[in-house]
Amino acid sequence: MSEPTYVIGHRKPDTDTVCAALAYAELKQEQGEEGVSAARAGDLNPETEFVLDYWDVEAPALLEDATGTRLVLVDHNEYSQTVSGAREAEIVEVVDHHRIGDVETSAPIPFRNEPVGSTATILVDLFDEAGVTIDARTAGLLLSGLLSDTVVLRSPTTTERDRTVAERLAETAGVGVEEYGEKLLAHKSKLGEKGPREMVLGDFKEFEFGSGRVGIGQVETVEPGVVLDQRDAVLDAMDGVVSERDYDALLLLVTDLLDEESTVLVAGDETATVEAGLDARFSDREAFLPGVMSRKKQVVPPLEAAFD
Amino acid sequence: MSEPTYVIGHRKPDTDTVCAALAYAELKQEQGEEGVSAARAGDLNPETEFVLDYWDVEAPALLEDATGTRLVLVDHNEYSQTVSGAREAEIVEVVDHHRIGDVETSAPIPFRNEPVGSTATILVDLFDEAGVTIDARTAGLLLSGLLSDTVVLRSPTTTERDRTVAERLAETAGVGVEEYGEKLLAHKSKLGEKGPREMVLGDFKEFEFGSGRVGIGQVETVEPGVVLDQRDAVLDAMDGVVSERDYDALLLLVTDLLDEESTVLVAGDETATVEAGLDARFSDREAFLPGVMSRKKQVVPPLEAAFD
Repeated sequence: MSEPTYVIGHRKPDTDTVCAALAYAELKQEQGEEGVSAARAGDLNPETEFVLDYWDVEAPALLEDATGTRLVLVDHNEYSQTVSGAREAEIVEVVDHHRIGDVETSAPIPFRNEPVGSTATILVDLFDEAGVTIDARTAGLLLSGLLSDTVVLRSPTTTERDRTVAERLAETAGVGVEEYGEKLLAHKSKLGEKGPREMVLGDFKEFEFGSGRVGIGQVETVEPGVVLDQRDAVLDAMDGVVSERDYDALLLLVTDLLDEESTVLVAGDETATVEAGLDARFSDREAFLPGVMSRKKQVVPPLEAAFD
Repeated sequence: MSEPTYVIGHRKPDTDTVCAALAYAELKQEQGEEGVSAARAGDLNPETEFVLDYWDVEAPALLEDATGTRLVLVDHNEYSQTVSGAREAEIVEVVDHHRIGDVETSAPIPFRNEPVGSTATILVDLFDEAGVTIDARTAGLLLSGLLSDTVVLRSPTTTERDRTVAERLAETAGVGVEEYGEKLLAHKSKLGEKGPREMVLGDFKEFEFGSGRVGIGQVETVEPGVVLDQRDAVLDAMDGVVSERDYDALLLLVTDLLDEESTVLVAGDETATVEAGLDARFSDREAFLPGVMSRKKQVVPPLEAAFD
């Protein structure tokens, strides 16, 4: 096989996606696989830039078109979230912690999806099963992915296994879970520097549900006011995205990391379906979702059901 | 959760599908999960009946309609092969060793697919990871699934891991791999008692490829002559199935277990596409496939590509 193999996460790379790609490519190299490297399908966010800088690791190269390559998908398993050209690539493996999406293959491949807080958590098992030691730097990357995706173990997606793995990785990396986690949260929250469109699309996923095309952005912050104080500009940006991409609904979750609740803004024609799905009532295009922190676990499943 | 959970294999239950369902349901019961039992989606074949009798295990109950239940799918992951009503059930887990199919979920679930020779092989890992000991009877069931799917470790799908696991299971079960394997093969080969339609549909899978609906039956035997001597009756039966089920192509692989080769018979309108996919030429609706033993690994991928 002369085609290159890329370990790659989704198109809106967050820290778990980037660190999982780096760590899994390293494991495969350690195991003697040739022609394997980590890649990314989009621009880095400030939190991930901080992480790579902190652990002194080079960013994976940007892959603009995957046509003709072999792909190991990490942290996603649906085509609407993959790198361009993925349908013309050979998908050779999947490691993920999301819902089961629409990726199909012709031949049997390793596909490992587990309902845990981060892809990093599963990768720790893969290192263990392969008998490969996790060094301090890789532990730092994996810990970053885990703490970022679980909002420092606060998200409802967090499992006991995530907590145990986080403690172990922190020890290997030589940092404290809470102390290092606070640094991550601080970078996640650098909202003041972002424009409204960036707030909407900075951490964004697109879904093809039964009867609708739905985009869901999320801002996780300790200062929700920074977004909500400029809600008119944010709603304008959302309307722009809806007409460009022809969404039936576009949601922006503004998640308060400290109070563990979200405010959701909505755009598109299918507000009634969104209301039914989330069991919430929008007033002036805004609704309050007490206890909601996880797009994946608390927002996507009921919306998919409502759009079916 | 008051809905029952069924661990269930595909609609044409073979020994790996039935034994995987029994063993995994047992593991879940051992782990204290409530309301979990094994089920089957179709009639047992003579080989599986022999296995259940040999290890003195009751057959899983037949599930005719899965609507409203929770399903753990073993040995398959596509809707065309699932129990009736699966689209109205909640799929809560998948353990398989085939291509990645079209099952999608709303929430993250455990999904473990590995390119090994049998689902039983993966289940041994799941017992180990759970720290649950495999008793002699369960080892016998798992060994049966493994040896049946790999044609006693002769199929090209067989991996080193399958060989290691088979030795270990045989030791626990107190049988010899080759000796017990020969008993299985003898039951797989009781062809003389079958009618032509039974030969076609006895071990049968249906696929929705890009541009075609394709059925592929397989007869694995040490006496291919028993099928090929009545090829006209078998072809008539195949034509009947094509018109009943509206297939674009229907293949019957007659696999010679000793010489490790197959003869394939064809029905339906898309013979040219099948020829292109298999790189074979049909003469009088029959072609010879040297070295081909595995439907999954050597027939499905090239056919899917040809129908795309």
